[in-house]
Amino acid sequence: MDKLGKFHFATESYLLDFQGKLPIPTIGNYLLHAASSHAGARGFGYSDMTEKQTAWVLSRLAIEMTSYPRSSGQVILYTWIDEVGKLFTGRCFELCNEEGKTLGFARSIWAAIDMNTRRPTLLDVERLSEYLLERACPIEKLGKIKPVENNTEGELFRVRYSDLDINGHLNSIKYMEHLLNMFDISLYREKQISRFEIAYQSEGRYGMELSLHMQEAISGKYDMAICNEGKAICRAAVTWK
Amino acid sequence: MDKLGKFHFATESYLLDFQGKLPIPTIGNYLLHAASSHAGARGFGYSDMTEKQTAWVLSRLAIEMTSYPRSSGQVILYTWIDEVGKLFTGRCFELCNEEGKTLGFARSIWAAIDMNTRRPTLLDVERLSEYLLERACPIEKLGKIKPVENNTEGELFRVRYSDLDINGHLNSIKYMEHLLNMFDISLYREKQISRFEIAYQSEGRYGMELSLHMQEAISGKYDMAICNEGKAICRAAVTWK
Repeated sequence: MDKLGKFHFATESYLLDFQGKLPIPTIGNYLLHAASSHAGARGFGYSDMTEKQTAWVLSRLAIEMTSYPRSSGQVILYTWIDEVGKLFTGRCFELCNEEGKTLGFARSIWAAIDMNTRRPTLLDVERLSEYLLERACPIEKLGKIKPVENNTEGELFRVRYSDLDINGHLNSIKYMEHLLNMFDISLYREKQISRFEIAYQSEGRYGMELSLHMQEAISGKYDMAICNEGKAICRAAVTWK
Repeated sequence: MDKLGKFHFATESYLLDFQGKLPIPTIGNYLLHAASSHAGARGFGYSDMTEKQTAWVLSRLAIEMTSYPRSSGQVILYTWIDEVGKLFTGRCFELCNEEGKTLGFARSIWAAIDMNTRRPTLLDVERLSEYLLERACPIEKLGKIKPVENNTEGELFRVRYSDLDINGHLNSIKYMEHLLNMFDISLYREKQISRFEIAYQSEGRYGMELSLHMQEAISGKYDMAICNEGKAICRAAVTWK
C-alpha cells in the first residue's frame, strides 16, 4: 500500500460560499474524509480503532490556502503521515486543482483515546511508522495560540442537535463554522483567509452554552476561543490576506 | 443516457449524528448532489442553466425514511424526473442500502429562475420530457403546510456567513438544520423522523434576524415555519415515529 493517499473531490456549486469559494469547514470535511479513508485502507481506520475500544481524536489542525477551489472543478487531495509519536501522530495534506497546481497545505495532529476512559492511549508506533513519508509541507507548524477569552465579552451559542458528532460531542467541523461566523461578511468580501489554525482542548456537549471570543492580535491576525463557563474548549488563530 | 440516475455515497462516521444515523440535512445534501449530477450529465445542470442566465431553485422537498443509513456502509441513491411542467419539474429519489434494501424515498419540486430578475422562467418542457420516467415513489405528495407563525413566539437566529449559499442566500440545507435544532435531543433518542417536508417561499439573506416557529398539530406531527419580520420564508412539517 502506497504511503501517500490521493483523493478526488468535486466542488459542487451547492457546497460553495457566497463568493463561490469552497469554505474552510468544507475543506476541513475533505481533510477528515481523506484522513479517515487513508487510515482505513491501511488498517488503522475508524473501525479498526473501535475494535480495540479506541478512537482517533483530532487535536490540532492548520490549513493554509494560497487560492481557494471554485466551482466546476475537481480538488485533488494528498495526505500522508509525517510524524509518529507515542501519543500523537502528525498528518499532512496538500490540496491541488485538477491541473495539479497547489492551492494549499494543511497539518494536523491526532491522538488516540480509550473510548471508555476518554483518556489518551498509546499508539502502535511501529505499525504507524511503516507509513511515515518525507514530503514537503511548506507551512508553519502548529503553534501556541494566545488566550483571548478574558479580554472580550464573547457571544453566546447553545450546542444543538446538528452540532453533535457520532460521540455526542460538538462536531470538530462545527467548531470551525461557529468561529468563522464571528467575522463580518465585509471581511470575506475584501480579503481571504490565508491560514486557519485550531487547537481542540475539550469536548462541547449538548445543551452547553458556549461563548465565542475573538481579538485582533496584529493587523489581519485574530486569536479566537470557544469557552464553556469561562474555560477554553478550543483556541483558534485566523490570518486574513 | 439512462433516464434513471444512480449514485453511491459512503456514510463516513464523521457525517453521522449522535445516534450514528445519517442526519436529514446530510441526506438532503446527497439528494442535491444526485439531482445536480443527474441534471448535469443530461445537459440541464448548473452550468447549462447559468449559460442561459437561469438557475434551478428547489421549491419543495419531502423525505420519508423507514430506516436510516448508519456507519460503515454505502448508500445507493436513485433519482429520476417524474413530472415536467412549464414552471415546475418534479424529481423523485429512492435511497437504498448496499444490499439494495429501500431505506426511504423523497420527492422534490424545482423551478427555474431568471438570474437577473429572480423571477420564474419557462422550462424547456420538450427537452426535459425526454427524461421522464415512470417509477414507483410510494410516499405522500407534497402538501399544504399550516401556518404556525402567529401561534408561537418563535426563537431568533441571525443569518451568518456559514448559512450562505453561492447566491448569497440562506442555504437550503441550513434551513433544515435550523428547523431540526428546534427539537429537543430527547425526541431524537425516543423516536425518529419518518417524514420531513419543506416548502421554500423566499430567500433568507445575510444579517436577517429570522424567527423559528413550531407547533405540534397532532401527536408526533409538527408544523414549522421560518419567518422574516413575521412573514414566512419557508414552512416545514415533521412527523416522528
